[in-house]
Amino acid sequence: MKSTEYLLATVRQVPADVEIVSHRLMLRAGMIRQLASGIYNWLPTGLRVLNKVENIVRDEMNRAGAQEVLMPSVQPAEIWRESGRWDFFGPELLRFKDRHERDFCLGPTHEEVITTLINNEIQSYRQLPANFYQMQWKFRDEIRPRFGVMRCREFLMKDAYSFDASRQGMEQSYQVMYDAYCSAFRRLGLDFVAVAADSGAIGGSVSNEFHVLADSGEDGIGINTEAGFAANVEMIDLPPSGAQSSQPNKTLAVVDTPGVRSIADLCECLSIPASKTLKTLLVRGDAGPVALLLRGDHELNQLKAANLPGIATPLQMENVETIAEATGSEVGSIGPVGLEIPIIADYSTRAMSDFVCGANQPDRHLTGVNWQRDLPEPEFADLRKAVDGDPCPNDPSLPLSVKRGIEVGHVFQLGTKYSEAFDATCIDSAGDSVIMWMGCYGIGVSRIVAAAIEQNHDESGIIWPEPIAPFLVCIVPINFQQSDNVAQVSLKIHDELAKAGIEVLLDDRDDRPGVKFADMDLIGIPHRLVVSDRGIAKGQIEYKRRGTDDVELLPAEGIVDTLRSRINRHG
Amino acid sequence: MKSTEYLLATVRQVPADVEIVSHRLMLRAGMIRQLASGIYNWLPTGLRVLNKVENIVRDEMNRAGAQEVLMPSVQPAEIWRESGRWDFFGPELLRFKDRHERDFCLGPTHEEVITTLINNEIQSYRQLPANFYQMQWKFRDEIRPRFGVMRCREFLMKDAYSFDASRQGMEQSYQVMYDAYCSAFRRLGLDFVAVAADSGAIGGSVSNEFHVLADSGEDGIGINTEAGFAANVEMIDLPPSGAQSSQPNKTLAVVDTPGVRSIADLCECLSIPASKTLKTLLVRGDAGPVALLLRGDHELNQLKAANLPGIATPLQMENVETIAEATGSEVGSIGPVGLEIPIIADYSTRAMSDFVCGANQPDRHLTGVNWQRDLPEPEFADLRKAVDGDPCPNDPSLPLSVKRGIEVGHVFQLGTKYSEAFDATCIDSAGDSVIMWMGCYGIGVSRIVAAAIEQNHDESGIIWPEPIAPFLVCIVPINFQQSDNVAQVSLKIHDELAKAGIEVLLDDRDDRPGVKFADMDLIGIPHRLVVSDRGIAKGQIEYKRRGTDDVELLPAEGIVDTLRSRINRHG
Repeated sequence: MKSTEYLLATVRQVPADVEIVSHRLMLRAGMIRQLASGIYNWLPTGLRVLNKVENIVRDEMNRAGAQEVLMPSVQPAEIWRESGRWDFFGPELLRFKDRHERDFCLGPTHEEVITTLINNEIQSYRQLPANFYQMQWKFRDEIRPRFGVMRCREFLMKDAYSFDASRQGMEQSYQVMYDAYCSAFRRLGLDFVAVAADSGAIGGSVSNEFHVLADSGEDGIGINTEAGFAANVEMIDLPPSGAQSSQPNKTLAVVDTPGVRSIADLCECLSIPASKTLKTLLVRGDAGPVALLLRGDHELNQLKAANLPGIATPLQMENVETIAEATGSEVGSIGPVGLEIPIIADYSTRAMSDFVCGANQPDRHLTGVNWQRDLPEPEFADLRKAVDGDPCPNDPSLPLSVKRGIEVGHVFQLGTKYSEAFDATCIDSAGDSVIMWMGCYGIGVSRIVAAAIEQNHDESGIIWPEPIAPFLVCIVPINFQQSDNVAQVSLKIHDELAKAGIEVLLDDRDDRPGVKFADMDLIGIPHRLVVSDRGIAKGQIEYKRRGTDDVELLPAEGIVDTLRSRINRHG
Repeated sequence: MKSTEYLLATVRQVPADVEIVSHRLMLRAGMIRQLASGIYNWLPTGLRVLNKVENIVRDEMNRAGAQEVLMPSVQPAEIWRESGRWDFFGPELLRFKDRHERDFCLGPTHEEVITTLINNEIQSYRQLPANFYQMQWKFRDEIRPRFGVMRCREFLMKDAYSFDASRQGMEQSYQVMYDAYCSAFRRLGLDFVAVAADSGAIGGSVSNEFHVLADSGEDGIGINTEAGFAANVEMIDLPPSGAQSSQPNKTLAVVDTPGVRSIADLCECLSIPASKTLKTLLVRGDAGPVALLLRGDHELNQLKAANLPGIATPLQMENVETIAEATGSEVGSIGPVGLEIPIIADYSTRAMSDFVCGANQPDRHLTGVNWQRDLPEPEFADLRKAVDGDPCPNDPSLPLSVKRGIEVGHVFQLGTKYSEAFDATCIDSAGDSVIMWMGCYGIGVSRIVAAAIEQNHDESGIIWPEPIAPFLVCIVPINFQQSDNVAQVSLKIHDELAKAGIEVLLDDRDDRPGVKFADMDLIGIPHRLVVSDRGIAKGQIEYKRRGTDDVELLPAEGIVDTLRSRINRHG
């Protein structure tokens, strides 16, 4: 491919609201353009990468024995009503009516479709196990799309659904997919981790997420490699440490804290660390509001809270009116002292002494607060997300380290949730009709493109892992328009590489070398050749690997073979 | 691939409302399943064929220098308002609001998106010519979806858009695409014809359609191979033949025609051929209704009628109330005698004499009607679609034959229609800003699958052209479960073919041979091998080409090479 016949579309400037590096680089490298909030055009460079990700994932699905199908993106409401998710799904499910006023939605996922489809096609255990996957653009009407294709509305997903005649069969199918996912992410050249996860809106019991590790990740992952442990921080149990509170040293006092609305404000106002503060959150309970207490530097784990007896599921924070009624105060200065509603405190708060909390009076806090002396010990429970240094569940003597991860895959043992809703049965080997056991398995194909960039870039641009690079080699000729020699040698190498099936971009634009070097670095092509008159005179081609600083001079003779030996193709 | 690990999904019965053979065979061969009206799931066999069509089309686009991009299916209303098509497009454009109450539509085509996109990326004639294509599922909310994937709502289309700095450039880009289309349809193994066509809702001047010839086609194509002519019947000019009406032989009479509502009713009632009847249609004119007269066996050409001066565009038939007011009668018995509104008659009616027409009285017609004697000669014009035997426009001494065609491709010289709407300009070689000239080019990828079946089937099922067959070879073993020999030889051939890159389906189901033969014929796999103990004993494999009756015995030794020599791969 020649640059003059290709839409490079590299740009210097990006909109001011672009927050993360992959979004910025995808715009700058001419990979995507926004059409509407969370809705993107894929330009040639972006689509080349997307197709490579898609093909590697497809190949791993085929190897694992999954069969490719394609289900519609426009789905009728009836099947969503039958599964109960028409009402359960929030406004992320984009609903509309067709010209005959029938209800439809844009599919954010396909459990309903596949279950009704396969229920009609599979009658016997002899046809099982079976696993069907598709590559399909899905739509979720995110309230606030951001981060480019990382959290957008229209996105490409590989979703697979397994069917088995027994729980054991489902578990085997799940393991096959789990292994295929590991294999796919390895082949994509990504640094990833598989973690225990929550099943969320999809349902089922066992579930694992696959995360690409990157600082910009939205999820916290607690890891201890020595103990072989990795889980979403939401999923990590934090039992009581056994530590008791120390003796009180300070007396209880009321202090004025004008304008304090958050823990950060409070720490600044009183010059104390967040670990000395106690935060109070009011959530909806079965019989009125319930107060949840956490150390100021800890985060509420909504899943754990929602699973406590007496707490509404899904978890709902109380509104301003209810808070005022229950505490006599407002958000920012509420606290447990004198509070006459049920109180549940995180285990870690038990060891606190001389702490600070809201006084249930506007703009006032209490300092020197201590359990038993100033207020009775509340009920304690596991309420928070794990943080760096928490004990590893596999071996409490080892500490967790919490890293940031981008979720790029999620596998679920669904059990019979959907097959029961649609009465999806088959005949087992004894001749009895049994409900089928399902698994479902998703990979965020378009999100992987962004995640790979988050993990592989420098100040000059993207550094593609070879398996998903838009081109493997770029040729930058010096004075292509002026020197016949340079043009001839460049074109010859270009043609030879193309013939050898190595994707190559020849930058034959009439531009300064600096512009071309910058663009090729930005786009992140792994191998760069520079063809110049000076090099030709010496029988040499300049070579540089993207991401390294070393420039090498390679013999022009046999350059294609030399390059081939340097390309680690996993394809 | 083995049948026991593959969702064959063949069925005997199809719903009663299935009208055409490709729809029936796609259901029976387990290629598609309906999810909602005009919305289909693609099962593995269907998707294999669809992917092959897609890949051949993609390859021809790449060869023609077009660059693949991908545009969103969810499109914001603003760009459709800017082009003026938000109002112009009818209810086929599915519109909805997102959670923020913003207007969107599901893209039925992408002129608006590509023009806004490329306008931002292309600044100079140096970047032109450029042609961008995508493979994208589109949505058209058809009022009455039917014929399976032939006229459905969600369908896969390849659409391409060319950009040039001049009309001449556009014409060259158009020719490149025209040639690429011919090449693609040839490689797909289809019997097709390229015809002059109308530009319709897309706009522009010059346009050509590509039709697969098949009896079930919805379009009429007038062809004369000798004269090198082919056009949609809508586009064929039919000038006056010069024939004058014969002398009247009959007297004018009023006859009772109770219950007659159509030309067919009338012919039956009076035992006359349709060519002796005159039909009268009332359409909206600029100053009230206008009567159009056609011979009973001819069809109105709506495009021609709408282009006449004084007639509303697009053509609108008058409603029952206006007809009653203008004629004093009702549809089924209106006619030109005594009618006091403007009348335009098709040229071919001029030669009619002693004809029959409505009497403008309910349930009555006039017989023995003659121009001049019974009513003044009206204005004559070209109003009808061409029929078999009409003179070929290229050489009026040669007759046209009218065949049925299925439109699978359409190319348009758009000119500046969209680039003007979006002010899409570039700098030309003189440094001036010029509006870009566009072409657009569509191929109905999913429709081709159905069209290929319409053209290639027999009473046993589909007969795939090799380039798009789901598998090239099938192996039917006799007593696979009982005979180790048969199983071993079958698996060996299967593995060797797979290794040679020849897609093969081994039907290893525990079923009677008759069931397997029927399924393999139904699915339409081009080459069939039968492996039996008897054959193995003689060192022979039975071979049959789908679509022929001859069964051959081939030496088992070297069977893969023998097969390879019989496969005509165009890929």
